[in-house]
Amino acid sequence: MKQLSDEKILDSWHKNASPWTVAIAEQQIESRNLVTNQAIVDAVVATGGRSVVDIGCGEGWLVRELTGRGLDVLGIDAVAALIDTARQLGGGRYCTLSYEQMAQRPPDERFDTAVCNFSLLGRESVAGLFATLAGLLNARGCLIVQTIHPLVACGDQPYRDGWREGSWQGFSDEFSDPAPWYFRTLESWTQLFVENDFALTRVSEPLNPQTGKPASVLFVGLKADS
Amino acid sequence: MKQLSDEKILDSWHKNASPWTVAIAEQQIESRNLVTNQAIVDAVVATGGRSVVDIGCGEGWLVRELTGRGLDVLGIDAVAALIDTARQLGGGRYCTLSYEQMAQRPPDERFDTAVCNFSLLGRESVAGLFATLAGLLNARGCLIVQTIHPLVACGDQPYRDGWREGSWQGFSDEFSDPAPWYFRTLESWTQLFVENDFALTRVSEPLNPQTGKPASVLFVGLKADS
Repeated sequence: MKQLSDEKILDSWHKNASPWTVAIAEQQIESRNLVTNQAIVDAVVATGGRSVVDIGCGEGWLVRELTGRGLDVLGIDAVAALIDTARQLGGGRYCTLSYEQMAQRPPDERFDTAVCNFSLLGRESVAGLFATLAGLLNARGCLIVQTIHPLVACGDQPYRDGWREGSWQGFSDEFSDPAPWYFRTLESWTQLFVENDFALTRVSEPLNPQTGKPASVLFVGLKADS
Repeated sequence: MKQLSDEKILDSWHKNASPWTVAIAEQQIESRNLVTNQAIVDAVVATGGRSVVDIGCGEGWLVRELTGRGLDVLGIDAVAALIDTARQLGGGRYCTLSYEQMAQRPPDERFDTAVCNFSLLGRESVAGLFATLAGLLNARGCLIVQTIHPLVACGDQPYRDGWREGSWQGFSDEFSDPAPWYFRTLESWTQLFVENDFALTRVSEPLNPQTGKPASVLFVGLKADS
């Protein structure tokens, strides 16, 4: 298995499912508490859609949050241990499915909104998933992606698409073997939407109130020709 | 006159029309030579449109460049001294008109493409101009805006819309009294497109080959419902 690959991402998440569940339950990630959790909930609610698929739902906090607001939510994740936890915690329907499996055999169900919250970390897996998303949505369906802001995350490295090594800096010692991730520029993110039949209707930049800088970037795409 | 205002921007450009013409003629602005001039020409040519309006054309280099590629180009600028120079240099049609005048009495002509190359510096003037742009374009017309990349230009200041003081740092001593400019986040730029009847079809980030970072951001919008 290559160290910088889609396969390695899943391998790492299988290893870290348990500390991740604790980190989310204990609200250990400050930028999520301060900014990005509210931003994704608000963005989904603002679409007005009733049925939602949360792709890369992890232990399911967003599924439960949205279900609590009266939406009908299906959470999908490739990591069975995370889906097991999600099912125990309840508050929605859950399904273990990798992005590759979704691309090959998309669920029969159709949704008003698809949401990917910091869950698009790979290269080919994400490109393949994007190609299936419009087909998962009802007419005038929305795709919402929140991710690391490329300009903020780029650091000293060249600003171009490419694999980056992972890090659990700031997390507890329970974490190990961090997942790599595939860096995409803003240009590349917007291309993924446009080339996969979504009209970009919003690019928002939730601000971290402590730094005054973007904590993330959040794209909203409207299924085209609908 | 307020120091940080649309009025002050024009006042400053009236004073600096002459050194600006020299700076462009002598290719004094390195990022333009390295990256952004080619980026805007390529973007306009890529639309396939035949008629172009260059809004905030200055001394007209882009008008001449596009005319040389067989396009029919009208250059518009608020600064009469710059339009006088442009007419002397030729290579296109020119018209002295402020953005406020364009918003009040838009030209009768319709174009395939409108381009604003580092020329949207104000607050109300730009908001007013944007509201008129779809009306200037033929069906399936394109709007292309190249501007300073907000994330790169933000510096240590908070990342939010607001007036910034100008600077002629890096320019010759002939320049004086720099124009202020109104900083817009990426979110705000994309909103201007979407709220004024353009579907964003491209957000590109021409890279400075020396720094490896974006030299600008370039938006392409397609006139909606067309």
